[in-house]
Amino acid sequence: MKFSIQREQLMESVQNVMKAISSRTTIPILTGIKLEATTSGVKLTGSDSDISIESFIPAEEDGIVYVENIEPGSIVLQAKYFPDIVRKLPQKNVDIESDDKRNVTIRSGKAEFHLNGQDAEEYPQLPQLHTEDSFELPIDLLKSLIRQTVFAVSSSETRPILTGVHVKIADEELHFTATDSHRLAARKIPLEKREGQGDIPAVVIPGKSLNELNKILADSEETIEISVTENQVLFRTKHLYFLSRLLEGNYPETSRLIPDQSKTIVKIDTKELLQSIDRASLLAKENRNNVVRLITKEGNQIEINGNSPEVGNVVEEVVADEIDGEELKISFSAKYMMDALKAVNYDQVKVEFTGAMRPFLIRPVDDEQILQLILPVRTY
Amino acid sequence: MKFSIQREQLMESVQNVMKAISSRTTIPILTGIKLEATTSGVKLTGSDSDISIESFIPAEEDGIVYVENIEPGSIVLQAKYFPDIVRKLPQKNVDIESDDKRNVTIRSGKAEFHLNGQDAEEYPQLPQLHTEDSFELPIDLLKSLIRQTVFAVSSSETRPILTGVHVKIADEELHFTATDSHRLAARKIPLEKREGQGDIPAVVIPGKSLNELNKILADSEETIEISVTENQVLFRTKHLYFLSRLLEGNYPETSRLIPDQSKTIVKIDTKELLQSIDRASLLAKENRNNVVRLITKEGNQIEINGNSPEVGNVVEEVVADEIDGEELKISFSAKYMMDALKAVNYDQVKVEFTGAMRPFLIRPVDDEQILQLILPVRTY
Repeated sequence: MKFSIQREQLMESVQNVMKAISSRTTIPILTGIKLEATTSGVKLTGSDSDISIESFIPAEEDGIVYVENIEPGSIVLQAKYFPDIVRKLPQKNVDIESDDKRNVTIRSGKAEFHLNGQDAEEYPQLPQLHTEDSFELPIDLLKSLIRQTVFAVSSSETRPILTGVHVKIADEELHFTATDSHRLAARKIPLEKREGQGDIPAVVIPGKSLNELNKILADSEETIEISVTENQVLFRTKHLYFLSRLLEGNYPETSRLIPDQSKTIVKIDTKELLQSIDRASLLAKENRNNVVRLITKEGNQIEINGNSPEVGNVVEEVVADEIDGEELKISFSAKYMMDALKAVNYDQVKVEFTGAMRPFLIRPVDDEQILQLILPVRTY
Repeated sequence: MKFSIQREQLMESVQNVMKAISSRTTIPILTGIKLEATTSGVKLTGSDSDISIESFIPAEEDGIVYVENIEPGSIVLQAKYFPDIVRKLPQKNVDIESDDKRNVTIRSGKAEFHLNGQDAEEYPQLPQLHTEDSFELPIDLLKSLIRQTVFAVSSSETRPILTGVHVKIADEELHFTATDSHRLAARKIPLEKREGQGDIPAVVIPGKSLNELNKILADSEETIEISVTENQVLFRTKHLYFLSRLLEGNYPETSRLIPDQSKTIVKIDTKELLQSIDRASLLAKENRNNVVRLITKEGNQIEINGNSPEVGNVVEEVVADEIDGEELKISFSAKYMMDALKAVNYDQVKVEFTGAMRPFLIRPVDDEQILQLILPVRTY
């Protein structure tokens, strides 16, 4: 194997595939990065067997040459060393070459690295997904869907299915839903069925996979293709191939959690409410798990307070744009509320309460696509 | 106690005094920040008993009002909460007030915090240094002296005296010296004796204190006054008072370590040498404590290499500006060499060797004030 490559492109690909590599894998060869050169370009692969990422650097694209002097072949290099080496190379161009004893030479300017490579034949083959069950989204939109839901997955392995985001297509809508059973985050978008497309099964994608995917994808209006099989999901852009296993099991029916009526509705500036709760939570850290209290007052006022008996207490007042319905005193996790308000991503929110002991909803005022639900905490 | 203060000034002072506060102190009241209001302004104090920092916010300076409505008094507030509260307050102005039961109210806009304060009388009195043994330096220059030496202090408590920087004034020169017995970093500057000034004793200032001081001081051409007593040193600027204990014991005589002749002299571009060693060290991490090898070659070439038998090796070539004297092969810690080269702060350095087993010197080509010394590692 032999090729000359632009260091910057190589670095970007290395950083992408590194997102899949864990030093704690039980399969030793997966601590490496696979490099594969063909006449069309160089492909890098990283995997921890849950997530696999391939990044392709074309030999030439749009008239720009990225890889030259290619002699096809493949090798596996240790991920503990290779990324630092690439980052610190002195010149814009890098020559990489391996001989038949898998001695690899990396050359740039007057720096020359010799590394012991491993046999690429020993690297597990990534499954090739054969499926017609795919759909496309703008990358920007996929990143929003992830950011607005993934924070609500469970971090506990008690119910493993809740560590993933439920993705389903129904009635020409794509739904992302996450819940840790104390709160729920959901977003749906319209999705037209393509000509001749089959039904796409509902799946549960590990939250960790979606977080890594979100990190790798740069904001862009280009599209990403999402393909689903029984136990894997593939996200594919022009040069990136991101494969994740799915979580097995039945995802709970969440629609029945969502109240269909409300007794108190508050419309309020998102940022003002967020900052008040942030401050109130400063003195709510010690006891009762970061719980703050919200009280509706006369004159469209909301009082937020936090209390930590040993330390002190906070009282905040925020003027709402509108308060309708019953008076209310309710306590909830400041962290959950802040996560939800950040996810809403609109200047004004509508918070719908059904009494102090029932779940409440946070939504943008004029957008039904985003829904955040939080279970209150009993303090009265 | 009562006053209205600009949040930004308060925040800066809080951040400064926080540098002295440790949550692991054995004296409970030292986990707090002391606030003291007088008609001239507000003084904040933090201390871990090794380091004490006072930051003063004047009521008015250069026609700008920073503190108003002052009712003198003092209180101690928990450092775990107070900084976050100040940072997140909604308005530019903050009202702070304590009653005679030490209930403290912090008010900004519609946010109101109530904190339980502690009695300022219980806070230890900082010693007032009475000494004529003081000198002045531009802050910029003091920061350089610290940065160019403090990294070389020992991090081991085996010889506690080596965890400090030796500061002495002799022959109208101020000397900063640090060594961990494997390397040494020294810088001297001319310092004229002030009229009627007594002799200033040589002292050893804890490296940790100097690191914190360096973080607090903003680059500036203003001067800082340094006062020395038998067991403490005080750094004083207009509004900052930084007090540190000194290390007790005899600092070793380091001048005899410095070779007065050399057998091989290399003049070379600092950055090129630094980057080569950085790369070579990538494959020198596993064994022999990060050791790289330097070999002089024909045609003013230097070869740098790193070797990690399990992983691979690196060979680098750097063209020196000049090589005089004997041929040389020498091994040394890449980390020590990189620290030294970064401290030199000149584009070109002179490295003076006296054979493979003797300490070598790194200095700017035309500046005798900065000196870095490294002991080589035996590998041949």
